[in-house]
Amino acid sequence: MTETLRIGIAGLGTVGAGVVKLLAQNGDMISARAGRRIEISAVSARDRKKDRGVDLGRFRWFDDPISLATDPGVDAIVELIGGADGAAKALAEATLSRGKTFVTANKALLAHHGAQLATLAEKSKSAFMFEASVAGGIPIVKALREGLAANRLSRVFGILNGTCNYILTKMEATGRDFADVLAEAQKLGYAEADPAFDIDGIDTAHKLAVLTSLAFGMPVAFDAIHVEGIRRVAAVDIAYAAELGHRIKLLAVARRTPHGIEQRVHPALVPLSHPIAHVDGVFNAVVAEGDFVGRTVFEGRGAGEGPTASAVVADLIDVAAGRRVPAFGVPASSLAKQPLAPMDRHVGPYYLRLTVYDRPGVIADIAAVLRDEAVSIESLLQRGRAETVPVVMLVHETEEARMRRAVEKIAALKAVTEPPRVIRREIL
Amino acid sequence: MTETLRIGIAGLGTVGAGVVKLLAQNGDMISARAGRRIEISAVSARDRKKDRGVDLGRFRWFDDPISLATDPGVDAIVELIGGADGAAKALAEATLSRGKTFVTANKALLAHHGAQLATLAEKSKSAFMFEASVAGGIPIVKALREGLAANRLSRVFGILNGTCNYILTKMEATGRDFADVLAEAQKLGYAEADPAFDIDGIDTAHKLAVLTSLAFGMPVAFDAIHVEGIRRVAAVDIAYAAELGHRIKLLAVARRTPHGIEQRVHPALVPLSHPIAHVDGVFNAVVAEGDFVGRTVFEGRGAGEGPTASAVVADLIDVAAGRRVPAFGVPASSLAKQPLAPMDRHVGPYYLRLTVYDRPGVIADIAAVLRDEAVSIESLLQRGRAETVPVVMLVHETEEARMRRAVEKIAALKAVTEPPRVIRREIL
Repeated sequence: MTETLRIGIAGLGTVGAGVVKLLAQNGDMISARAGRRIEISAVSARDRKKDRGVDLGRFRWFDDPISLATDPGVDAIVELIGGADGAAKALAEATLSRGKTFVTANKALLAHHGAQLATLAEKSKSAFMFEASVAGGIPIVKALREGLAANRLSRVFGILNGTCNYILTKMEATGRDFADVLAEAQKLGYAEADPAFDIDGIDTAHKLAVLTSLAFGMPVAFDAIHVEGIRRVAAVDIAYAAELGHRIKLLAVARRTPHGIEQRVHPALVPLSHPIAHVDGVFNAVVAEGDFVGRTVFEGRGAGEGPTASAVVADLIDVAAGRRVPAFGVPASSLAKQPLAPMDRHVGPYYLRLTVYDRPGVIADIAAVLRDEAVSIESLLQRGRAETVPVVMLVHETEEARMRRAVEKIAALKAVTEPPRVIRREIL
Repeated sequence: MTETLRIGIAGLGTVGAGVVKLLAQNGDMISARAGRRIEISAVSARDRKKDRGVDLGRFRWFDDPISLATDPGVDAIVELIGGADGAAKALAEATLSRGKTFVTANKALLAHHGAQLATLAEKSKSAFMFEASVAGGIPIVKALREGLAANRLSRVFGILNGTCNYILTKMEATGRDFADVLAEAQKLGYAEADPAFDIDGIDTAHKLAVLTSLAFGMPVAFDAIHVEGIRRVAAVDIAYAAELGHRIKLLAVARRTPHGIEQRVHPALVPLSHPIAHVDGVFNAVVAEGDFVGRTVFEGRGAGEGPTASAVVADLIDVAAGRRVPAFGVPASSLAKQPLAPMDRHVGPYYLRLTVYDRPGVIADIAAVLRDEAVSIESLLQRGRAETVPVVMLVHETEEARMRRAVEKIAALKAVTEPPRVIRREIL
């Protein structure tokens, strides 16, 4: 195992350039750790002329990424094209079916075709690695697949999208509203011109699908994820949450429940006493809870040139050193479909904000509705004296379906002047 | 690779019993992940009759742990005896020299003989694994050795001793003094009857020696660590630190400096804005800073039956699956001795608490001494009016030798009535 591992990089955006820089800058150390050299043999991207801030003149260039996979001078492909289908998927299949290593940062591809590609990789005895696909530089795939492998996990959750976390952190710090902070984030380059993919929770859900599969040994089940983004989070809710000892974060949660595996992405109140509440700005974090290890927390930068390149090259070092692990921790054939819990059966505590006429008896009416659905009030804030006033409540654990019914009835009360705002809380 | 991996466990204390329980409870899942069964073949401990809460009747019993290593029915040893020398070291040598796998939770052994044992393991092509030796259930050895392997690290630091962190957390929460909280911790079983090993920082230093070697690719250099424990941390300092936006933690720090690798264990003020400030009670955390990944934080339970067993079995799964990694990340022959920075050359900011007569001109005298040593004041608190009053200062980064000289001169001022208290701050 002293020959060089020759890699082909498909896609030369920010991360591709980062991988080129990293291998140049830390090459000697990487060789010592991998037991042999890792060298870029060829690259593929659309625009040959674009200045990427790195010297690409030494590498062979292919216009068609598939040629990288068929090239006899390439042992391993680093796929940084992106997208669930199209060129990325074709390249994955071309690479893995030839028994070559496929390393990717592509969470959409994994969320949609992860199990199928893992099966293909096993058939052809190729390595299929994707540390960079979830939580950037945090080695969370390795942690779930190897570091915590002795544990039966009960819940995995985290903050997986830096754009959303930046916006929510900024909203809290400044008291400004969502649209305003989003516009600023776009100006600063922290949010895309079309931000829907991030702020509507899709990107987070792609990553959660991968974590769920790793944590519970089941095939990725992206379509079963309940997804809500952060568009409706109001500055006033962040302020009330803070008053009640909580922060609002966009959480991705996968857990075992009596009704099956529950997967959900939504804004949630988290108590300040838990480390996840202190993960700010563009940082990501993942919490894994195991039967022997208890609670573990992993935090770091979730995106960007350096962190993502760090994860890609860690995978390459493992491959170069001959370390092999099944893509999702167990052989693809043992990935067992598990019952998936419907969101109606979700059980948890909630935050509820109402706007009501400031009249005697209003709280009594609301409390009666909650009582009828067996929803129990934990705390209640009523602020100011005006024609309409906000009423903010934390309620104890209840079933989502019950909560929904209660909120519908409350919304129909004459004294309630605006649609109620409900945000889930995560028990930590 | 379908035969069973047969292990021998030496030492059946809390962690040994945990490993027995874990393998029984999660055995099927572990087989799926390891690709073969991991079974206990034999055990060794002093007292056969002691009730350990697990059924040991199925296993062969050896009085002498060395017999485990020589037994042809044992492929891998789990060493949970403890201690830097004696039985643990003899067992390590007997195991590794026979080409068998040696898995240990023994940080003292690693801190004193890690490099030598790594060399022996390489010669005989045996696996030498020690995830459980640092930070309990947190897979930090794997993270440094594999997950962050693409990075040149600049600093690794953390909270590595649950007893100390429990005491400091409790002191802050209750305002009570060290001796009082220690006595309570001993009653509750969170501190040993002889607590010196924990509270004087030795246990933390053992673990730091391992992290330094992994992070910087050098042989363990335990004797070069500057070690101070928490006995002198006063409740009043914790309170002032809080007022100034900091917490006091027992930190273990290894970093590259212009004078070489610096390794130190001491109480330190950490700003509330950093995640390490929120690691409370018996939790441990490690922060690793790399040139590409930036800051990563790993948190979890640092000791105890479940977390330590989780780490031991993760190592066994890697071994059973055939995954091999050099003990300290690079071949033992490439572990390069590096210059070690003396503590006099340490550069950092400090916290300083003085007790002085409440007279005009006292602050001017103190400020003049600091000026003469080019130590610059960042903030200053003076509280109350009485015969003697506390003066608390944060000073900017300066060299340790200068700070020491300044403090000696300040202590000699007539207006200063008690020995000054100096605590380092960590720049985060």
